[in-house]
Amino acid sequence: MQHQRPKIVDVARLAGVSTATVSRVLSNPDVVSAETRRSVEEAIRQTGYRLNHAARNLRHRRTGGVVALVPNLSNPFFSQILAGMAAVLAGAGYNLLIADTCAMGGETLLGYAEPSRADGLIVLDGTLPADGLKRRVPIVLACEWIPGIEAPRVKIDNRAAARVAVEHLIGLGHRRIGHVMGPPGNVLSEARLAGTEQALAAQGLPPPLVLPGDFSLDSGRLAGEAWLALPAEQRPTAVFLASDAMACGFIGEVQHCGLAVPRDVSVMGFDDIELVSHMTPALSTIRQPREAIGRRAAQCLLAMIGGEAPEGDIVLPTELVLRASTSPPVTTPAIKSREAGPARL
Amino acid sequence: MQHQRPKIVDVARLAGVSTATVSRVLSNPDVVSAETRRSVEEAIRQTGYRLNHAARNLRHRRTGGVVALVPNLSNPFFSQILAGMAAVLAGAGYNLLIADTCAMGGETLLGYAEPSRADGLIVLDGTLPADGLKRRVPIVLACEWIPGIEAPRVKIDNRAAARVAVEHLIGLGHRRIGHVMGPPGNVLSEARLAGTEQALAAQGLPPPLVLPGDFSLDSGRLAGEAWLALPAEQRPTAVFLASDAMACGFIGEVQHCGLAVPRDVSVMGFDDIELVSHMTPALSTIRQPREAIGRRAAQCLLAMIGGEAPEGDIVLPTELVLRASTSPPVTTPAIKSREAGPARL
Repeated sequence: MQHQRPKIVDVARLAGVSTATVSRVLSNPDVVSAETRRSVEEAIRQTGYRLNHAARNLRHRRTGGVVALVPNLSNPFFSQILAGMAAVLAGAGYNLLIADTCAMGGETLLGYAEPSRADGLIVLDGTLPADGLKRRVPIVLACEWIPGIEAPRVKIDNRAAARVAVEHLIGLGHRRIGHVMGPPGNVLSEARLAGTEQALAAQGLPPPLVLPGDFSLDSGRLAGEAWLALPAEQRPTAVFLASDAMACGFIGEVQHCGLAVPRDVSVMGFDDIELVSHMTPALSTIRQPREAIGRRAAQCLLAMIGGEAPEGDIVLPTELVLRASTSPPVTTPAIKSREAGPARL
Repeated sequence: MQHQRPKIVDVARLAGVSTATVSRVLSNPDVVSAETRRSVEEAIRQTGYRLNHAARNLRHRRTGGVVALVPNLSNPFFSQILAGMAAVLAGAGYNLLIADTCAMGGETLLGYAEPSRADGLIVLDGTLPADGLKRRVPIVLACEWIPGIEAPRVKIDNRAAARVAVEHLIGLGHRRIGHVMGPPGNVLSEARLAGTEQALAAQGLPPPLVLPGDFSLDSGRLAGEAWLALPAEQRPTAVFLASDAMACGFIGEVQHCGLAVPRDVSVMGFDDIELVSHMTPALSTIRQPREAIGRRAAQCLLAMIGGEAPEGDIVLPTELVLRASTSPPVTTPAIKSREAGPARL
């Protein structure tokens, strides 16, 4: 029958203690005797008192939350990374809140680097302004990184991984190899292109035909259109795309125009998102240890929140996953035209 | 050379005003003269003073944030809904923070319904406990809903949409129709099953062969296995799956075992996620107006935060999207065995 929200003074009165004691039970129970703690806890239960989180966090300078800034939630690449982070953070009593930097202005983003907003940040977007993110709360960079920010980075060796992917295509006998890039200026795009060029140069092969992209499905479809528009004899016989989402779009476009993967073009992706093992053909790709990236980033951040010195870079291993989308090039001049009619399944 | 963090009193001293005036400039500038405002703003700039958000929000009982509780971020269904929400909220000066309910315990979830944590909640998970979410902050339910919570719901007519999907399959000539369900107990699963059964009953056809699922890619793959394990003459000639992700897993499994869609089985999905128009065959499905769902949910919540009475249910239209994965059944007994060898592309 109680209509007013119970206050801390109601709890104190019922338990026969001061409000300071109630507050200590809530914030630092180890300094209170077991008997007092029990009677205060019982009074909290009976009154239905609830802590005012904003007031408590103001006292503790602790929000209980970690914010992850993600460049584009619609890319399925991020889901398992976020799951890994959330699992580790939940184990330490922290919430993970995720914000999509696509949808936010710069001012909003900088606000998350305030200690009153989050106890720490995990930044997965390498294109944020370095200025605003400096030194306000512990920061860990994961996957991408921001030149000019001194913070631990949890990453893979993108250049080496791209080299491995392209070496596989060369090993199958491909000599004309295309590369579909991530967004211009992105650190991952640059490293994966560099690895592609290195692998080709090491074998004395010509540089790759480079097509633009932005990691998205639709940019992969456009790269497929661009590949189809080339004269058949100039088309790369194998294409390495800087994300699996782009590889899906590329394969879809090629198949819808009546050509087949890998018969007419071998396709190699990057990421190993869940979907690509279910596609036909199943995609050959570079597996990123996505859950481990999330877990390590969260562990690293928790250590910093706890006052430990930041770790250096953490570089996790990748793996070449060979499935059905790559094969040796067909040497007969089988490809004639993009008007070959619908794909036969 | 300043080492201490500047305080509001430093700003007041430099501007020659009281701290109360500085506070008014920060929180309610319209009540301060233009001249005073300019001198305070200049002092803020010179000192580098920054507002303590936790303190300000405590005074205003306003966090500036809206939290969306999402059941599973790895389902690509949610990305466009969240983008629609974020766009509307950003326009009104609110941040959207997203939490994945998979990763959180019940206690954590209830915390978001405190006014000190968020100004409002948008709940996309129909399986949360109704008790904790009652009446602490404005709440809007989107897509799914929680029986026992009085809150506006932004949704589609799931039963009618499922009926339309199955009527299409019946119209093509299918008589043995399968349905792969969403997770048991989920309101969407129940409604889509009911629509399937209604469409069949209305034509005097036998009830559907029902296979279990949970909306995930992998549960669709398992449903594909179950379909393949049936004697060929008992296999449904068409299968309607309660999510596109499951349809992707189902088609992948069928194709990897050497059968073809739609020749050997017509497949119909639900959602119209971005990927399914790129697949081969492109998926026939029910399009949900995902961005509009997100926008309407955010608009509805902002109105409630602004003190308006909650709207009733908002039901948005769906659309039957016909692509290449559905066709009339093949009448010849073409399907012999699941050991038919790898798919020919």
